[in-house]
Amino acid sequence: MDAPLRETKGLVAIDLLPPEQKGGGSLLAALARRQTIREIASKPLPPQILSNLLWAAWGVNRKLWGPFGACGRTAASASNSQEIELFVAMRDAAYRYDGTNHRLVPVAAGDWRGSALTPHQRNVDAKAPVQLVFVADLHRLTHTQGFEEPGLHDPEVQKSYYFVDTGLIAGNVYLFAAAEGLAAWFHNCDKTKLHDALGLNDEQRVLFAQSVGYPADKPA
Amino acid sequence: MDAPLRETKGLVAIDLLPPEQKGGGSLLAALARRQTIREIASKPLPPQILSNLLWAAWGVNRKLWGPFGACGRTAASASNSQEIELFVAMRDAAYRYDGTNHRLVPVAAGDWRGSALTPHQRNVDAKAPVQLVFVADLHRLTHTQGFEEPGLHDPEVQKSYYFVDTGLIAGNVYLFAAAEGLAAWFHNCDKTKLHDALGLNDEQRVLFAQSVGYPADKPA
Repeated sequence: MDAPLRETKGLVAIDLLPPEQKGGGSLLAALARRQTIREIASKPLPPQILSNLLWAAWGVNRKLWGPFGACGRTAASASNSQEIELFVAMRDAAYRYDGTNHRLVPVAAGDWRGSALTPHQRNVDAKAPVQLVFVADLHRLTHTQGFEEPGLHDPEVQKSYYFVDTGLIAGNVYLFAAAEGLAAWFHNCDKTKLHDALGLNDEQRVLFAQSVGYPADKPA
Repeated sequence: MDAPLRETKGLVAIDLLPPEQKGGGSLLAALARRQTIREIASKPLPPQILSNLLWAAWGVNRKLWGPFGACGRTAASASNSQEIELFVAMRDAAYRYDGTNHRLVPVAAGDWRGSALTPHQRNVDAKAPVQLVFVADLHRLTHTQGFEEPGLHDPEVQKSYYFVDTGLIAGNVYLFAAAEGLAAWFHNCDKTKLHDALGLNDEQRVLFAQSVGYPADKPA
């Protein structure tokens, strides 16, 4: 199930803590506080917050659901193809988020967070503890376990689906950040560098990235 | 500010109730319940729920925000261009959601909900009380009040932005529906018919639609 690992000597998969699915602030309050915050401190996210964040973004929220027996997730996807892969670049390594098992599978040692920004953006901030990287896997769109329709094989329609589906996940991240007092910022990234760094194949497309962390202290 | 109205004799703008921004269920619980529900009853949404739904989707949550002085919304958009227009097709008419003033501006008399579905989908359900129609306004992308960047003028980049931004709004709708016990379903629509019906211009693109209502009773 996992792609061959590369440059991952000494790295091990991280079993995330079980995500909290109760408590916390209300949805309406999170919507009221939703905003983009680009100035982010380097302070790492505690393990429970990282777990909750990834589950909120794109976690499994029900097993064996629907007419096709696939699991359901916190974000919708075209024909439930679940074609978006979420990668997580942190200080020491980059990981693939395995939502089914709620764990992080290492894909590349080293700090790839800078590649999740573009040169211009790097002037803004490169220290956010978490860079989520959104990757579309076209193979999943054309081999969906869900409802099969011709658009899934049309490159223009595929684009519309995988970008919308990216937004659905990124929106969950924005609201989770608002509820937890975190900062989040969705932005462009260095697609070529990340494609290489993450060891992606020809059917996988790097799309965007999203910085998450604690808000930086405002200058006095 | 409003586009000229068409076929709106006898229709008046609807001032929505002030949206509730407190109370309700938790964000984590909404994420746990998030799912697509396609079977939707015809029962209309009460005025307060309709107000909350539209505000949650794409309402203004802060005025005069950020370096460029534009208002902020419950969903992010590329360079804060706020290029997505949300239209609302209900039984008697179609409206444009004016988020700034939190009201519905009539754009077409009659029932256009069927055009928010495609012929195949119409076999599934055409009675949902609300069809949200997502329209990209390219003029806003190329005349953003936010940060100006070259990608805003590149048609391929524009696509990536307006589809992601659609997903960010649709994700808010999914979570609001989950929190309120409503059904929501994001889907394709009849773009040509809706472009005509809503009186759109050459820079406006109909993208997708989303059905919202109460879940239909399950057959015994």
